[in-house]
Amino acid sequence: MSSTAGQVIKCRAAVAWEAGKPLVIEEVEVAPPQTNEVRIKILFNALCHSDVYFWEAKGQTPLFPRILGHEAGGVVESVGEGVTELKPGDHVLPCFTGECGDCRHCHSEESNLCETLRFNTDRGVMLNDGKTRFSKNGQPIYHFLGTSTFSEYTVVHVGCAAKINPEAPLDKVCVLSCGVSTGMGATLNVAKPEKGQSVAVFGLGTVGLAACEGARMAGAGRIIGVDLNPGRFNEAKKFGVTDFVNPKDHDKPVQEVIAEMTDGGVDRAVECTGSFKAMIQAFECVHDGWGVAVLVGVPGNDDAFTTHPMNFLNERTLKGTAFGNYKPRTDLPTQVEKYMKKELEVEKFITHSVPFSEINKAFDYLLKGQSIRCIIRMEA
Amino acid sequence: MSSTAGQVIKCRAAVAWEAGKPLVIEEVEVAPPQTNEVRIKILFNALCHSDVYFWEAKGQTPLFPRILGHEAGGVVESVGEGVTELKPGDHVLPCFTGECGDCRHCHSEESNLCETLRFNTDRGVMLNDGKTRFSKNGQPIYHFLGTSTFSEYTVVHVGCAAKINPEAPLDKVCVLSCGVSTGMGATLNVAKPEKGQSVAVFGLGTVGLAACEGARMAGAGRIIGVDLNPGRFNEAKKFGVTDFVNPKDHDKPVQEVIAEMTDGGVDRAVECTGSFKAMIQAFECVHDGWGVAVLVGVPGNDDAFTTHPMNFLNERTLKGTAFGNYKPRTDLPTQVEKYMKKELEVEKFITHSVPFSEINKAFDYLLKGQSIRCIIRMEA
Ligand SMILES: NC(=O)c1ccc[n+]([C@@H]2O[C@H](COP(=O)([O-])OP(=O)(O)OC[C@H]3O[C@@H](n4cnc5c(N)ncnc54)[C@H](O)[C@@H]3O)[C@@H](O)[C@H]2O)c1
Ligand SMILES: NC(=O)c1ccc[n+]([C@@H]2O[C@H](COP(=O)([O-])OP(=O)(O)OC[C@H]3O[C@@H](n4cnc5c(N)ncnc54)[C@H](O)[C@@H]3O)[C@@H](O)[C@H]2O)c1
Ligand SMILES: [Zn+2]
Ligand SMILES: [Zn+2]
Ligand SMILES: [Zn+2]
Ligand SMILES: [Zn+2]
Repeated sequence: MSSTAGQVIKCRAAVAWEAGKPLVIEEVEVAPPQTNEVRIKILFNALCHSDVYFWEAKGQTPLFPRILGHEAGGVVESVGEGVTELKPGDHVLPCFTGECGDCRHCHSEESNLCETLRFNTDRGVMLNDGKTRFSKNGQPIYHFLGTSTFSEYTVVHVGCAAKINPEAPLDKVCVLSCGVSTGMGATLNVAKPEKGQSVAVFGLGTVGLAACEGARMAGAGRIIGVDLNPGRFNEAKKFGVTDFVNPKDHDKPVQEVIAEMTDGGVDRAVECTGSFKAMIQAFECVHDGWGVAVLVGVPGNDDAFTTHPMNFLNERTLKGTAFGNYKPRTDLPTQVEKYMKKELEVEKFITHSVPFSEINKAFDYLLKGQSIRCIIRMEA
Repeated sequence: MSSTAGQVIKCRAAVAWEAGKPLVIEEVEVAPPQTNEVRIKILFNALCHSDVYFWEAKGQTPLFPRILGHEAGGVVESVGEGVTELKPGDHVLPCFTGECGDCRHCHSEESNLCETLRFNTDRGVMLNDGKTRFSKNGQPIYHFLGTSTFSEYTVVHVGCAAKINPEAPLDKVCVLSCGVSTGMGATLNVAKPEKGQSVAVFGLGTVGLAACEGARMAGAGRIIGVDLNPGRFNEAKKFGVTDFVNPKDHDKPVQEVIAEMTDGGVDRAVECTGSFKAMIQAFECVHDGWGVAVLVGVPGNDDAFTTHPMNFLNERTLKGTAFGNYKPRTDLPTQVEKYMKKELEVEKFITHSVPFSEINKAFDYLLKGQSIRCIIRMEA
């Protein structure tokens, strides 16, 4: 039992007070975990674009003050009543979409959208009591994605923490808890290209590059990377990308450009941008008869996917995925083991690193398209 | 060799001279088949809703004068140069979407959208010379779907005629050449419900009822029939339908009605209406995590499929199909054999029958929602 168990912990957290305003490192109070909750000491974070959307709150529901962060790694500090799967000292990755292990979705071989613990971007409180575990001077501070890892300590539902090999370096494997697994799974578990097939990936950030990496692992014959930022193309070669398309370089719709490059369309497409236009393009660039497109990017509240129904009648398939269809608590430990056995690389996704006090720099790097993943080191 | 081989045949055809105006039975001239073409004596037709769309030409490109018709059965009268697969006297079903046997699609296990012979609703001429085989007093009359079966004789590409068991009664199995196979295949080959799963079918015409029949054959636990026409519900019981929903009976969207009936959504949905609204409803009523929706109805030129992208991220799948993904020349003979062995019923789809001279009555029955399939007997 740690000396802090059962106590309120005072620690540093990066608080988003207002939409789009720099996060402020504050001393906050973190309540002890309640029934089926665990309190985690966060050691490393990485910044994912989903954090940025809810900080900008442009197409998303604003909820402030809030502690963002969901791609991270840490160590269990204490556990609440009824928690048997985890104990203090366990190394864990937080899961922005959880796994209760016991609902129809958790029992299904196809779904990872746990009935109780699935991602909910608009909820800012814990399920147990509908309240927050964070506060500053008595003012509650909202949670994000059930993880809120931009804090030295956070409280999550036990179903939202995956226990992993304690030998695994948390400053590396933290990126498996969202971006890298999401992209890789989108290709390997959902798009499922056959050996030799062509795959187009829209958006070459961490999620997109991981989708490319998945395509490479599946033996894709051709991997076409699509991004508006030409700075991404050089980096992308390390991830198996064979062809690059910048929609800005063409007068015609990128669907047509890709159809011409591929004798009618790609076999698979994975959209990793969050732009609804790219979602439509990704769908419309797959080959008729057998093409499959997978949506991964998080859309805005007012976005719409629109296409002519004949594009479906021509035997194209459209799917979407959360977390690459991985079941977080079941599959993250395996992902980490694959990293330990060098079957899966994560280092190449990590281009920057900043101390917690400079967390706003990580936002800058991402917004300017300079970083792939930027690690945020929580140590003082 | 028939005595008419190589000769122009004068015969009766039902000509659509203008959009929405009753067909007129005319004496037309039917040219002999050219290279890779066959001339078929049509014995029976059935009326499918697709004929009606292109006759109304409301949401579709108008092309007149035209001979419609694509669900039929007949006997080969003569064959053009290079035809080896068929000979005079063979019993055939015309295929509105053909099978060359030799392109990427024909070689693919997934697609039935032959590169050369796939359905093309806007083409009114033969591929060989870009001309019509029908004329009246020298005026060309356009083809429809490469079949134009509302004529005592028609000319089709050899890849658009499936040779079937000559014992099979053409007045029955003709319905397998479009509607029944399309709906059945949409469920069995594309939606693929597992035993015990729930299936919603939108539209309870021939195509929809065949989709229900497919669900029944697959062992679906619950089959929810959705139609705006309550007259369809009684009939539908013969096709395994267990629950009926008329969207008009509810104040809330039918997606919500179905979600409430099924604890969150059906496992599979098949849309067989041609209404883009029903297409959206069919997609949005499938369960998140694993639900699959299949579009079958033919949309209008200006229709759009629109939904919030989050409906895909919540792990729903959307597909579409032409002819239920059956490869026409490969699979139609097997469908007919299943009928002969009583593994597949077609009689229950046939509710009306008219002589060719009364073909406009068949249009009436369909438009008023009175018939399922109405057979049109070509004999004088
Ligand atoms: N479904 C999930 O479970 C899940 C999980 C994690 C992230 N996401 C989402 O995945 C997306 C990517 O995340 P990331 O962290 O890799 O972001 P990122 O910002 O690092 O990468 C996005 C890339 O997309 C490019 N892009 C933007 N609009 C484009 C367009 N119209 N066409 C082509 N390229 C375009 C950008 O230039 C950028 O390189 C985001 O929308 C994020 O919210 C979804
Ligand atoms: N994809 C293909 O290969 C293919 C092949 C054949 C037919 N089709 C199409 O399938 C559709 C059905 O053909 P059919 O011959 O069975 O037609 P039909 O007219 O016999 O049946 C259609 C049924 O849909 C119902 N309906 C219409 N709008 C509806 C709505 N918004 N909600 C619920 N029900 C609605 C009608 O009341 C009718 O009962 C047509 O669009 C036809 O063109 C497609
Ligand atoms: Zn993320
Ligand atoms: Zn669960
Ligand atoms: Zn038809
Ligand atoms: Zn072909």
